[in-house]
Amino acid sequence: MRIETDSIGKQGVTDSAYYGIHTVRAIANFPVTKATVNPLLIKKMILVKLAAATANHQTGTLSETKYCAIFQACQEILVDYSKYASHFITPAIQGGAGTSTNMNVNEVIANRAGEILGATKGKYQLVHPNDDVNMAQSTNDVYPTAGHLALIDFSDKLLTNLSKLCITLSNLATKHHETVKMGRTQLEDAVPTTFGKTFHAYYSLLKRDTSRIEKARNALLSLPLGGTAIGTGLTATSNYASYAIKELSSLTDLPLTQALDLSDAVQNTDCYVQLSSAYKSLAISLSKICNDLRLLGSGPQAGLFELQLPKKQAGSSIMPGKVNPVIPEVVTQVAYQVIGHDTTISLASEAGQLELNAFEPVMFYDLFESASMLSGALDTLNENCLKDLVVNKKRCLDMVEQSAGIATAISPQIGYVAATKLVKKSLKSHKSIRFLLQNDVKLPKETVTELLSINNLVHPLATKPTLKSTKQQYIL
Amino acid sequence: MRIETDSIGKQGVTDSAYYGIHTVRAIANFPVTKATVNPLLIKKMILVKLAAATANHQTGTLSETKYCAIFQACQEILVDYSKYASHFITPAIQGGAGTSTNMNVNEVIANRAGEILGATKGKYQLVHPNDDVNMAQSTNDVYPTAGHLALIDFSDKLLTNLSKLCITLSNLATKHHETVKMGRTQLEDAVPTTFGKTFHAYYSLLKRDTSRIEKARNALLSLPLGGTAIGTGLTATSNYASYAIKELSSLTDLPLTQALDLSDAVQNTDCYVQLSSAYKSLAISLSKICNDLRLLGSGPQAGLFELQLPKKQAGSSIMPGKVNPVIPEVVTQVAYQVIGHDTTISLASEAGQLELNAFEPVMFYDLFESASMLSGALDTLNENCLKDLVVNKKRCLDMVEQSAGIATAISPQIGYVAATKLVKKSLKSHKSIRFLLQNDVKLPKETVTELLSINNLVHPLATKPTLKSTKQQYIL
Amino acid sequence: MRIETDSIGKQGVTDSAYYGIHTVRAIANFPVTKATVNPLLIKKMILVKLAAATANHQTGTLSETKYCAIFQACQEILVDYSKYASHFITPAIQGGAGTSTNMNVNEVIANRAGEILGATKGKYQLVHPNDDVNMAQSTNDVYPTAGHLALIDFSDKLLTNLSKLCITLSNLATKHHETVKMGRTQLEDAVPTTFGKTFHAYYSLLKRDTSRIEKARNALLSLPLGGTAIGTGLTATSNYASYAIKELSSLTDLPLTQALDLSDAVQNTDCYVQLSSAYKSLAISLSKICNDLRLLGSGPQAGLFELQLPKKQAGSSIMPGKVNPVIPEVVTQVAYQVIGHDTTISLASEAGQLELNAFEPVMFYDLFESASMLSGALDTLNENCLKDLVVNKKRCLDMVEQSAGIATAISPQIGYVAATKLVKKSLKSHKSIRFLLQNDVKLPKETVTELLSINNLVHPLATKPTLKSTKQQYIL
Amino acid sequence: MRIETDSIGKQGVTDSAYYGIHTVRAIANFPVTKATVNPLLIKKMILVKLAAATANHQTGTLSETKYCAIFQACQEILVDYSKYASHFITPAIQGGAGTSTNMNVNEVIANRAGEILGATKGKYQLVHPNDDVNMAQSTNDVYPTAGHLALIDFSDKLLTNLSKLCITLSNLATKHHETVKMGRTQLEDAVPTTFGKTFHAYYSLLKRDTSRIEKARNALLSLPLGGTAIGTGLTATSNYASYAIKELSSLTDLPLTQALDLSDAVQNTDCYVQLSSAYKSLAISLSKICNDLRLLGSGPQAGLFELQLPKKQAGSSIMPGKVNPVIPEVVTQVAYQVIGHDTTISLASEAGQLELNAFEPVMFYDLFESASMLSGALDTLNENCLKDLVVNKKRCLDMVEQSAGIATAISPQIGYVAATKLVKKSLKSHKSIRFLLQNDVKLPKETVTELLSINNLVHPLATKPTLKSTKQQYIL
Repeated sequence: MRIETDSIGKQGVTDSAYYGIHTVRAIANFPVTKATVNPLLIKKMILVKLAAATANHQTGTLSETKYCAIFQACQEILVDYSKYASHFITPAIQGGAGTSTNMNVNEVIANRAGEILGATKGKYQLVHPNDDVNMAQSTNDVYPTAGHLALIDFSDKLLTNLSKLCITLSNLATKHHETVKMGRTQLEDAVPTTFGKTFHAYYSLLKRDTSRIEKARNALLSLPLGGTAIGTGLTATSNYASYAIKELSSLTDLPLTQALDLSDAVQNTDCYVQLSSAYKSLAISLSKICNDLRLLGSGPQAGLFELQLPKKQAGSSIMPGKVNPVIPEVVTQVAYQVIGHDTTISLASEAGQLELNAFEPVMFYDLFESASMLSGALDTLNENCLKDLVVNKKRCLDMVEQSAGIATAISPQIGYVAATKLVKKSLKSHKSIRFLLQNDVKLPKETVTELLSINNLVHPLATKPTLKSTKQQYIL
Repeated sequence: MRIETDSIGKQGVTDSAYYGIHTVRAIANFPVTKATVNPLLIKKMILVKLAAATANHQTGTLSETKYCAIFQACQEILVDYSKYASHFITPAIQGGAGTSTNMNVNEVIANRAGEILGATKGKYQLVHPNDDVNMAQSTNDVYPTAGHLALIDFSDKLLTNLSKLCITLSNLATKHHETVKMGRTQLEDAVPTTFGKTFHAYYSLLKRDTSRIEKARNALLSLPLGGTAIGTGLTATSNYASYAIKELSSLTDLPLTQALDLSDAVQNTDCYVQLSSAYKSLAISLSKICNDLRLLGSGPQAGLFELQLPKKQAGSSIMPGKVNPVIPEVVTQVAYQVIGHDTTISLASEAGQLELNAFEPVMFYDLFESASMLSGALDTLNENCLKDLVVNKKRCLDMVEQSAGIATAISPQIGYVAATKLVKKSLKSHKSIRFLLQNDVKLPKETVTELLSINNLVHPLATKPTLKSTKQQYIL
Repeated sequence: MRIETDSIGKQGVTDSAYYGIHTVRAIANFPVTKATVNPLLIKKMILVKLAAATANHQTGTLSETKYCAIFQACQEILVDYSKYASHFITPAIQGGAGTSTNMNVNEVIANRAGEILGATKGKYQLVHPNDDVNMAQSTNDVYPTAGHLALIDFSDKLLTNLSKLCITLSNLATKHHETVKMGRTQLEDAVPTTFGKTFHAYYSLLKRDTSRIEKARNALLSLPLGGTAIGTGLTATSNYASYAIKELSSLTDLPLTQALDLSDAVQNTDCYVQLSSAYKSLAISLSKICNDLRLLGSGPQAGLFELQLPKKQAGSSIMPGKVNPVIPEVVTQVAYQVIGHDTTISLASEAGQLELNAFEPVMFYDLFESASMLSGALDTLNENCLKDLVVNKKRCLDMVEQSAGIATAISPQIGYVAATKLVKKSLKSHKSIRFLLQNDVKLPKETVTELLSINNLVHPLATKPTLKSTKQQYIL
Repeated sequence: MRIETDSIGKQGVTDSAYYGIHTVRAIANFPVTKATVNPLLIKKMILVKLAAATANHQTGTLSETKYCAIFQACQEILVDYSKYASHFITPAIQGGAGTSTNMNVNEVIANRAGEILGATKGKYQLVHPNDDVNMAQSTNDVYPTAGHLALIDFSDKLLTNLSKLCITLSNLATKHHETVKMGRTQLEDAVPTTFGKTFHAYYSLLKRDTSRIEKARNALLSLPLGGTAIGTGLTATSNYASYAIKELSSLTDLPLTQALDLSDAVQNTDCYVQLSSAYKSLAISLSKICNDLRLLGSGPQAGLFELQLPKKQAGSSIMPGKVNPVIPEVVTQVAYQVIGHDTTISLASEAGQLELNAFEPVMFYDLFESASMLSGALDTLNENCLKDLVVNKKRCLDMVEQSAGIATAISPQIGYVAATKLVKKSLKSHKSIRFLLQNDVKLPKETVTELLSINNLVHPLATKPTLKSTKQQYIL
């Protein structure tokens, strides 16, 4: 155990630790979750430190020696993160607005850089966590900067998986362009449609979700970096920020810019609310789609069973042969989790006060969770469910044929009231609409065939109404 | 227009108005909703004023003359509220922690009481809204006190309707004790059950919701009255509170008590969170039940159609003969509204600061809305849906007979693996489990009949397993 | 009472009513709220009917006579809505996915149009609600179409008020460009800033909210009109939709288009989730700003009191002279209501099933409420609070001068550790940083003056660090 | 790799694994989170298996040999869980309503018990996961049973920590019984109070939260065990349940009972909603308290600074000497997380369908997280913040003395209007109320002293009003 000192007092630190006193205190202060800060956030923080050191060197405030040591330390950590992972241990949910995460990173870099220059761990004369590694920076600006970068990565992963799912849905839409099925509104039989339309509607929906997430992701390219304490830029030299942003753009290969209003950029968290809203919207869409899949796949004997979902595992410990829609079920649960996270993020964002929002740690934690859970959900939905989805075409067609819902097609010809009577008669007599039109309404067979042709029912816009002048004669 | 004056300055007030300057200012300040304060809250506030005046008279701080005038004014308003309704016009959602509502009531009573004593409206020498009507009171204590009383009334109305619904469900459970149907887990065929069990499960659920609402309602019997400003009791005489609570108990016929910790009672709003939670739990229960009703009533031809919900209105402007489950649908929407209100109430409660929560107005508004909407939803669900619900018994029985799910009953005898094979064979060959047991497994017909008897399937606990020692022979 | 008949049976309707049997049933079925459908939604629905009738006439499916009568009826209602308002009475929250609202409109138009042609109310031979007024339409497409139009109007009103508030904030930012105040992070003294930065940060935030609402509003320009039942276009002629959209664009002066995927447009409600998210984000922003205003205006003697909010009403019924921040308080309550509505809308959207979402009525109700409440909140915040906001400049400056937070400015020169010691000494000895720098650190007076100049503190980026090479000498 | 087979097909399983094919499939199916099922849930599941095996042995359906092997396997796992922890690896959020968790446990026990009897892993002839370990059980009943037991444990831990916090608050209330401070409503100066009242109000609030959590915890003592598939009890012998419950009570030392309505107990999840509501209420309470602590501790120079929170870590990477309220901040973030979880749980509960709710896994996951995070938050709030809290008494008293709020005490004597004028004069002239009463109102010094005595201000109910008959003379 070595002893380190800060403004609070003395504290023992494990000798081998690259982290220092601030990190040790954080662990004691925040015993609320076993989860530590997400490695991706740490890595992005290190990129920020690297960019800041480079900028400080370029502006002449950081010596060549220190810069090289900091540079090397950052590189080592980024190249072989697993070697240093056990030194980044502040709890994911922490008080202090991210200061503990920032100081953990400062300490590890300072100790490793100092070591490179010959110092013992815990001795910061050669490289100081605050004066050198954190030079021209405040947690106020670097913590959200790293958060932005991590969220961009998380979103990109999610968007990749979302894109794959969209391709699968598009393929299903094409494949089932002519697969007729009964449409249902409010769970009641409506009029026929096709599974092509069903899958394409999902596709269209998810394309809009894609666009919303992309917009929210792109808003994160604007960074508070250079704002230092509360956006004033205090302690930074005047050209530091432009150098740092440029270097960070190069390191991340992203078109990063500095926010125009740094006080705003440091204190407001609406970009996280927007991203969470976009995630939530996707979650709602996925849950709606998965609820449909479960419903259409229900049965096999006492349900709709228009779809056969791929069988992925035995469904029951007691009921032999049962198979459950486990993939849609896990996706829906992810959706609920994401919606819950959106509540948390809304609360945390609303609780910002004056020049800072102290609750970014929980926002980041929940956004990271939401993004990675959605990515996994998209992947399993695509690979384990939609790619091998089977449509029970015969069952679909049988339901259409027996349904009284097709009477809607004849409504413009015979009027709503007469058509209603026809439907009631069909339901009561168990005779099909087709039969009744021929035998009771006495329509010519060819007319009935044309009116009730699948093409006319599910692609009506391509056809012309042929009977409109003769409505009265069909009143029952 | 008469001119009134307060600490802010002068303000015109309509000559005929019983309200005064504070009310006029409130309307100008809070143009966020057309809804005015719920009349029930106003009435409860007037009861509080009556009780306070009585107590102040009893303790000797309010003169006989003023007391009688205030008493008469309150009585008049309570007896013929519609006559005064247009004078209680502060917006339902208001800043000021309810002060505007309290002052509106103080002003109307003061002006009417003054009028009784011969004063002109707007002249408060004879009866003053603050010194006399509000004597020994603060908005801090009287506003939540009135809120408690209003919420008790709203909850009692709701509980009455909930009780009626429970009776209907209990009757349905009895009526359908032997109505067999297929049970479904995760929307997949499970094992048979009865509609008796289904309805009784709803009954049991709603009984617990009843209990939760009752507990939350009873917690409201403890009042902050007498706490005046921030629970100190400042300006009240020492025996005022006990007189006032006693009088209020008598006026409302409720076993009211004063809170033991008045600082707590004035500043904390957890009782509203608890009530909202109880409402939310009921909302979730109702929505679950209504979702089931819609699902079981789906069809009539391309759905489950085990239930025939009463037809309450034509379902479509375009699709003739369509009927939709409009009652469950409106109940579910009410449920979502109540769940949303719970979010609002949670936020408002969390935002309390120091000695007061300034956001009680929105909490009251949402709780009143939740309670009255739930009352209406319970009523229409009971009267317009459940009372005339029809079970399609034959369809239910057909589904059970054709289902492979009944193989579970035979699983203890032949083992899970063999039973699984049996189910797969049944599904593939479209032969019933009953047929396969007799013809493939070669079980004696009587054994099959006994095993698959409805009684054994849905009330298995009453029967003994008869084949357990001979399991091995049935392996397929 | 006249008797009307539908597929359910017979029903009495008040003789004078323009509405018909469907409307009467709806009132009986949905007794959950006293609120009826928002008039703006009704008006937009009538515009849709007008556009549809015109298109049907243009395509030859609606006769000249009927068209003229329907046209005149719609015009009359739009021109003098108050005359017909009492005939649009379906409850705002309704089952049936909006069919009751659509039928209410169909019935009123049909009865008035029939009346114009000489028919008695309730007799639909001349103009039929379903066959004529609803020709080529389904609730599935016209209800969300009208909803889109209403939401565009509500959003435009909100955006106008938001724009006015932004102008006020921009003016405040300019006015207080040099008004120095203490910055606070996590409620603890940080470093100085200006009220110009504070107000500009609010401005920047609300500009992004403006952009989010505009994007969500513009997404509503794409309409499901022409999709009729579940997006198939069934019963519509092939060129109906293009005529109808064109006419509706003309009537509303909006660049409307038909959705490319009509199945999607009819069944999915993500555009409402997006709009609600944008409203929610604004709500969070406003609440954050208002919380700041309340905090900065706290006191007058035992609070921060950097701001003097305009006095809008006497603050207490018991505490003389008290004035409360009632405007920010009502805004925050509106924000909580909007956040709660977002929960409701999320739930309702997620509950969509298959070809339709039955829960649009509650989504519309809540979005209308959110938009109009936010509009009112923006207006009162602007007019009753921000326009006359006073900054207590002297108090602000006093706080900055006495604060130890300004030591941050000297940190790059003397190092973080030394600066920390300086701060601790200042706090303990009650001597100012300025005094200690001169007397303990022995910095030349001119250096101290330059370092701690207001300009260097709050606009540091414009200055160069002057002491960086001489850090070591200042270690205490 | 060994090969196992189920109804889906063949699947490789690591040779050394005690888990089997179902577990392997689950991992492939649910790649949404790295978190695996909470060990406490696994342990409770094993207790259930132990109780079930005992009951099955007692009723004669499980042989002595198998029973002893299962018994030993369960004991081994419970005694040295770490040895088996790597075999319980199903993801925490999973589809299938908990079947994967149940089967994971069944497989590990079956393989270990089989091993004890001489079988190779993966060969289930001697002890079968479904037929033997899962005998007379369904995931439907055992999964929620184990969930109840785990939640009772989590709640008990939380209640212990809550109790400790209450003791600290009670001690603070006693200690500061006479510590006068300014009370504030709506952040504006109100009337004086004491820190004793402040801390006691927190205590009273948390005592009610304690009671709500206890009630919700006790509701979990009623178990669905014995319901097997959908509450029918299918495959269980008639006296199995009573033996199993009795054994489980003995194993857990809890007064467990079987639910009266098993269909209800299997399908409904309101008990989780109730527990989550109780957790949420506590979260709201804690956040309110912590917000107060941050506000009262703000400063040290530009804030209220009535409290000095213990300094737990350096507050800033850039601002020397800054200390932040990190403990209250982490508690508030936990509160927001718990409130978000409540949204998730509400959604999941509402989504239950027919005979089962498939979304229990996410409910358990979030409830476990909520409970453990709250436990940690209570602990750190108690140990790291409240136990060493310091009240800045002098500053508190100074604020009271200079405040005009104390004029309320004189209001009953001079009237509200006159008192208002007095306050305005005090604020404008910067003369104290005490001074004005003596010099402007010309009250005798002794009277002023009595009226404004601390005792009269903060404990007014103990004193009598002395001046009430002479009000008129004090009008200014």
